[in-house]
Amino acid sequence: MPAIIKPLYMAREFIRACACNGELVIDATAGNGRDTLFLARQVGDKGKVLSFDVQKEAIERTRKLLEDENLLHRVVLILDSHERMPYYVQDPVAAIMFNLGYLPGGDHKIITRPETTVNALKAGLLMLRPKGIITLTIYTGHEGGAEERTALLSFCKNLNQKQFTVLHYNIVNQINDPPSLLVIEKIH
Amino acid sequence: MPAIIKPLYMAREFIRACACNGELVIDATAGNGRDTLFLARQVGDKGKVLSFDVQKEAIERTRKLLEDENLLHRVVLILDSHERMPYYVQDPVAAIMFNLGYLPGGDHKIITRPETTVNALKAGLLMLRPKGIITLTIYTGHEGGAEERTALLSFCKNLNQKQFTVLHYNIVNQINDPPSLLVIEKIH
Repeated sequence: MPAIIKPLYMAREFIRACACNGELVIDATAGNGRDTLFLARQVGDKGKVLSFDVQKEAIERTRKLLEDENLLHRVVLILDSHERMPYYVQDPVAAIMFNLGYLPGGDHKIITRPETTVNALKAGLLMLRPKGIITLTIYTGHEGGAEERTALLSFCKNLNQKQFTVLHYNIVNQINDPPSLLVIEKIH
Repeated sequence: MPAIIKPLYMAREFIRACACNGELVIDATAGNGRDTLFLARQVGDKGKVLSFDVQKEAIERTRKLLEDENLLHRVVLILDSHERMPYYVQDPVAAIMFNLGYLPGGDHKIITRPETTVNALKAGLLMLRPKGIITLTIYTGHEGGAEERTALLSFCKNLNQKQFTVLHYNIVNQINDPPSLLVIEKIH
């Protein structure tokens, strides 16, 4: 077991440390459903996962995966932009996961965009309960990826340190653009 | 308990995950002795800590702290530059901790310098056992600190990814230059 955990898996370690059994959490990018499944296991039968995606294929993949695992009852699947999360949730949420870029095995031209991601992030910050967290797994290997990371880092650097702590968790010596991780924790 | 651990404390979490009871470890910057004390507790009575500093005051502070804690028998204090670590250790080491900058409460003009830190880091990488780690806690608030960080990041970015994994763990939204953390893990 290596001491340094990859950013992709480290996002889940932070969620494990934060979101408890019975809580309300969000997967802002359902994708292939892997994070939704992880969150459904994490919050248990008394918890709830809201899982968003703008692509029908992603929602269907996620539905299939959760059905196969008999955990679909813990999840609400929503075919809509994560910018519109506040329209679906009024209660404070413990955690929101973003896994950016494109849908693996899907149309690589459909990618998350800096403007909508930052808007969704702004909305998400208002939805967090105290000590709640947002994780953003960011890819830079595809066109537009580096710009998205720059936009997110720039936005995060200006978050008030009395309200939020922002960690950048980044492997620096890999040649093939591995994902990096941003974690935002609401202090109070 | 917040989900995001400060870089200063996170260095110790990585050491805990890596260096076991009975192992040989190094504090490359004894300073006020806090990391040496932590390492002495970590390796137990069968382990050994080599603790380096170029300032006599740091060595004396460390000796006093370890004496007070009845753990001096686990430590070898060495008044010499960490560039010369290989002259004192032939066996592979499990972990090396660097806490850069100046001695708190000491002469703030005596700081670690990019050239010597990079040289010591090069030496340290050759001394690690497989899966061993080096942690570097880096301060940028003092004159020369930003240059040191740039030099270290630049060196680390070029480390062969087949031999080492390098993590940069960095809080991005603090206005008062908090330390950041580099962790280097030897893969094999």
